[in-house]
Amino acid sequence: MIAPTRLAAPLASLLSLALSLIAMTHTPAAAATADPVPTPAAVTLDRVEPPDWWVGMKSPDLQLMLHGAGIGALQVALAPTPGVTLVGARRGDSPNYLFVDLRIAPTAQPGTLTLQLQHEGRTVLEHRYPLRARAPGSAQRESFGPKDAIYLVVPDRFANGDPSNDAVPGMAEGPRRDDPGGRHGGDLAGLIAHLDYIAGMGFTMLWPTPLSENNSPKWSYHGYAATDFYKVDPRFGTNADYLRLGAEAKRHGLGLIQDIVLNHIGVHHWWMADLPTADWVNVWPRYTETHHARMSLQDPYAAPSDRKRFSDGWFTPDMPDLNQRQPLVATYLTQMSLWWIESAGLAGVRTDTYSYSDKDFLAAWSRRLKDEYPKLNIVGEEWSPHPAVVSYWQAGKRNHDGYVSSLPSLMDFPMQEAILAGLNQADSHDGGFTRLYEGLAHDFVYPDPANLVLFEGNHDTPRLYSMLHEDLDLTKMAWAFLSVVRRIPQFYYGTEILMTSPRHRDDGAARGDFPGGWAGDAVNAFTGTGLSERQAAAQAWLKRLLNWRKTERLVHEGALMQYAPLGEAYVLFRYDAAKGQNGKRLMLVLNKAREARDLDLTRFSEMLRGGETATDVMTGQTATLGTSLTLPARSVTVLSIE
Amino acid sequence: MIAPTRLAAPLASLLSLALSLIAMTHTPAAAATADPVPTPAAVTLDRVEPPDWWVGMKSPDLQLMLHGAGIGALQVALAPTPGVTLVGARRGDSPNYLFVDLRIAPTAQPGTLTLQLQHEGRTVLEHRYPLRARAPGSAQRESFGPKDAIYLVVPDRFANGDPSNDAVPGMAEGPRRDDPGGRHGGDLAGLIAHLDYIAGMGFTMLWPTPLSENNSPKWSYHGYAATDFYKVDPRFGTNADYLRLGAEAKRHGLGLIQDIVLNHIGVHHWWMADLPTADWVNVWPRYTETHHARMSLQDPYAAPSDRKRFSDGWFTPDMPDLNQRQPLVATYLTQMSLWWIESAGLAGVRTDTYSYSDKDFLAAWSRRLKDEYPKLNIVGEEWSPHPAVVSYWQAGKRNHDGYVSSLPSLMDFPMQEAILAGLNQADSHDGGFTRLYEGLAHDFVYPDPANLVLFEGNHDTPRLYSMLHEDLDLTKMAWAFLSVVRRIPQFYYGTEILMTSPRHRDDGAARGDFPGGWAGDAVNAFTGTGLSERQAAAQAWLKRLLNWRKTERLVHEGALMQYAPLGEAYVLFRYDAAKGQNGKRLMLVLNKAREARDLDLTRFSEMLRGGETATDVMTGQTATLGTSLTLPARSVTVLSIE
Repeated sequence: MIAPTRLAAPLASLLSLALSLIAMTHTPAAAATADPVPTPAAVTLDRVEPPDWWVGMKSPDLQLMLHGAGIGALQVALAPTPGVTLVGARRGDSPNYLFVDLRIAPTAQPGTLTLQLQHEGRTVLEHRYPLRARAPGSAQRESFGPKDAIYLVVPDRFANGDPSNDAVPGMAEGPRRDDPGGRHGGDLAGLIAHLDYIAGMGFTMLWPTPLSENNSPKWSYHGYAATDFYKVDPRFGTNADYLRLGAEAKRHGLGLIQDIVLNHIGVHHWWMADLPTADWVNVWPRYTETHHARMSLQDPYAAPSDRKRFSDGWFTPDMPDLNQRQPLVATYLTQMSLWWIESAGLAGVRTDTYSYSDKDFLAAWSRRLKDEYPKLNIVGEEWSPHPAVVSYWQAGKRNHDGYVSSLPSLMDFPMQEAILAGLNQADSHDGGFTRLYEGLAHDFVYPDPANLVLFEGNHDTPRLYSMLHEDLDLTKMAWAFLSVVRRIPQFYYGTEILMTSPRHRDDGAARGDFPGGWAGDAVNAFTGTGLSERQAAAQAWLKRLLNWRKTERLVHEGALMQYAPLGEAYVLFRYDAAKGQNGKRLMLVLNKAREARDLDLTRFSEMLRGGETATDVMTGQTATLGTSLTLPARSVTVLSIE
Repeated sequence: MIAPTRLAAPLASLLSLALSLIAMTHTPAAAATADPVPTPAAVTLDRVEPPDWWVGMKSPDLQLMLHGAGIGALQVALAPTPGVTLVGARRGDSPNYLFVDLRIAPTAQPGTLTLQLQHEGRTVLEHRYPLRARAPGSAQRESFGPKDAIYLVVPDRFANGDPSNDAVPGMAEGPRRDDPGGRHGGDLAGLIAHLDYIAGMGFTMLWPTPLSENNSPKWSYHGYAATDFYKVDPRFGTNADYLRLGAEAKRHGLGLIQDIVLNHIGVHHWWMADLPTADWVNVWPRYTETHHARMSLQDPYAAPSDRKRFSDGWFTPDMPDLNQRQPLVATYLTQMSLWWIESAGLAGVRTDTYSYSDKDFLAAWSRRLKDEYPKLNIVGEEWSPHPAVVSYWQAGKRNHDGYVSSLPSLMDFPMQEAILAGLNQADSHDGGFTRLYEGLAHDFVYPDPANLVLFEGNHDTPRLYSMLHEDLDLTKMAWAFLSVVRRIPQFYYGTEILMTSPRHRDDGAARGDFPGGWAGDAVNAFTGTGLSERQAAAQAWLKRLLNWRKTERLVHEGALMQYAPLGEAYVLFRYDAAKGQNGKRLMLVLNKAREARDLDLTRFSEMLRGGETATDVMTGQTATLGTSLTLPARSVTVLSIE
């Protein structure tokens, strides 16, 4: 039995598998039987996943995936370890996998388990498996919420901090910065080097698109086609660099949100050459792509075949669809998620293509994560313009079909669309600010609207500034609405310097390089060098807004009152529900008119007594409120009123 | 005491109020007091509303509004009548109203009540009030539902059956057919004369826009600004003509749906010169129009002042807003609704501007109507593109705010918009047929989606054919979808002959005269004379479709399965839920492609075994189904499969 020891370098196990290979004498007797087992000497163990685990998790269950030539034929034993029980082991369809079920009682201590892989009662291989102590307070960690502002970056396009890892032997795709779909060299070192900029802008959460290994010959930069779930892509850095990002971010007041893909893998994932089970990925008689008919899941009239095609169809020919109805897959994905949360001290999780995974699996997955981390926020991507669809997935929703989700947050696609329509369209009974107003009024369909992530753009959408026809006034309105409304705001890197894209989807163009992230860049947005006056002003404006937001309790948790749009103006208030008119209030006014307008303040009698002192949050100017307020043409006004 | 008698002409009481005026000797003593009562001899009684009532209503309560000079000062007594009790009487703020509360026990018999209006114990006026027997089965009458197809007509614009009533002395507006906003002369006689056409087209329900007196100098033709709730506008005919319409329609297999306005009246309503109470209509310090912010009623963030403005603001300066929080108003409107249902043997009610009335009143009003007529269908107009908003009002909806509605049906504005988008837009992840598909998939938010009225156009919208860019193929697709989907379909008069309008709102133009409705019309759509080949073909096509629908049980009550749109084709099935593939099925296929397409039938394995016999409903042609079906370019196919 191996004495429990506290591991100094917890991730060492991941980076070079701690395999203790014991060469055993070949046993001709065994080889001569009809048993299909390869000669035990040829058996290898090249992966154990998760590579390590913790004592003190809420669930005692742990299932290890062992991979190696012929390993499925071996039996497994556990060297006696107090509090740890070997429950059983099972093969997949491939002879090269063994799934080992362990039970880790609350009494178990950190240390190392010794798994003995045996043939005919003799140990052929031995694996020392780390059981670690959890970080203090890990289970009860705080997460992201309405107090936060999230900065979304595409790491390959943000900053190239370490040009030496741009090309890595064994990685199929090398750097090619002039190709919009190629790798540009951004990495973890670049992110770490600019955390001061991100935090300085007023952001409190950092969401990088996935950093896991994507060893594909093309499009590998975006990260959504994992070839190894447990390994950071070496062109971004090492797993240790990723942990360093988390730790450094925390030092800057930034939480780290990991982007986890449960639905699919890259076609070059190591599994694909040797699937653990025949049903590990969803297999079709001939290639079948999801038709994205997400509403087949809610539709009372849906054909079962449409539900199947939506959930089980492949995302692209390069992205095989995982079969989460296979319990081994479900367990693998759940443990993988928990492993990253615990290893990297994550502040939250973003889940890609959320509804595309098997919905029963999603219910169990979200429940398990919340069981382990009750305060953890997890935001799912459900790209639908319909509140009825997005709200279906939020924890607490009483669904027509009895579906129970534990997912706390969703990306607010309906409201993002409403912002664009609100600002781009002329006002009418159903257009312009009516969209903004009615979009927010739809909050009654959500169990917890304040916990939705409202974004002004992301890596899959055209740039905000371009969508608003490069109108800075409208852009500021969007930012201010996002920052003051009852939501978790999320900004897309580069928006602060008005980066542009085509107005239709064009991934390469919408994921442009952040200027200053590459040595030799003529423009440096980190320092301001070379920015246009307009860009610098926009950046400074957003910086002031977000830094104000950071400590403004009313934005984080205040009640909200909105007024129906009139005269091209939209008005909302945040206030203290207990104090109402008598407490501090925030007032947001968007004036879309192309001329100055006098806003009649007597209309807002629920929120304004008249005679209050109002401070313009963006200029610091103070005035006494009368019965009207002059709004400059195309303006956004944020007042702090007391 | 007056002996109960069965009234031969039940509406006679309405047309000339059966007033028994007893001249009383003037009593100087009374006049000499400080009492503000006018000399009793000067007291008049010019209206009693409702003008008659019934024994055997579920609720025993009846409140009469008496109007006449000085009548409020009188006391009321009831000549003894078995089963009828005088509960009390109350004045309004005006001296010219008296509200008399009666209780009509189940034991009461039809006959006449004698109300004695008294001053100082002496009867000054006597009114004989008819208490009628109800028509057999009245309470349990059947109503409109998914088995029906509704024809909406604007009576002024449909057919002028009686030119002698085009101009009526005392009515402010005369005929002016060349004015799109003027009266064109259509009337009840015109409707009655063409019931054979309407029924022959396959319609089973007739919804005329309001026929109540609208004695306004302008725009009186549309009927939504009542000046007398109990009187048919004489330019349409008499109340007796209206009853004749109901009876004749029934003889043609057509139910009559009355359009009732609860929210507002015309500014020339007789009340306006002498309001019963100061709060009879909603009064504002200065004219305040509703801002149509209907979502203020659901919005968790709504300012109370926005809710008030939406509900209490006037619809237009010509349409004062009734205050249904005043219980006398609420009772008046409820009894008025019941009176028409019972008098005219209505098959259903359509309620204009539904949500604009006080919502608590609406809950009570809809509950009362359903109490009296459990099977009655009532369809409310809630002009919102949002299923979450429309469904809020449907009976059975579990609302976030606990609001309980008893309204069985709503106009399906969201789906109507989805049809137009589905047909007009190119298909995409969120456009074209995806709108149709996702619109229908939203049925999960409704407690009873089959009971929604889905319309292809109405008197407030541009014409369907124009909205579809005068594309007959697309128009047929809309009609077929409407006719086969799980809804109550409603068509707008003239659509069958492809009447046009501007594509923006233009009431006069969208309410054009139906050709053939006026003597001397060069074109006559009733006979077909002068119709273009295209018009005649369209009319014949819809006629065949609707007549088929009339007896097609699967359309009325079958289950539905829809498939996600693919390749510019949309497919849905109606089927017997118990028999599935083994029973009769209907298949609707819309092909929007500009070329013929082969539809792979193997995709519909839930609904098609293969080898079935399919009959084209529109052509009668029969074929055996193989693995694919050739769809002509821009085509709609309705198959009956067995």
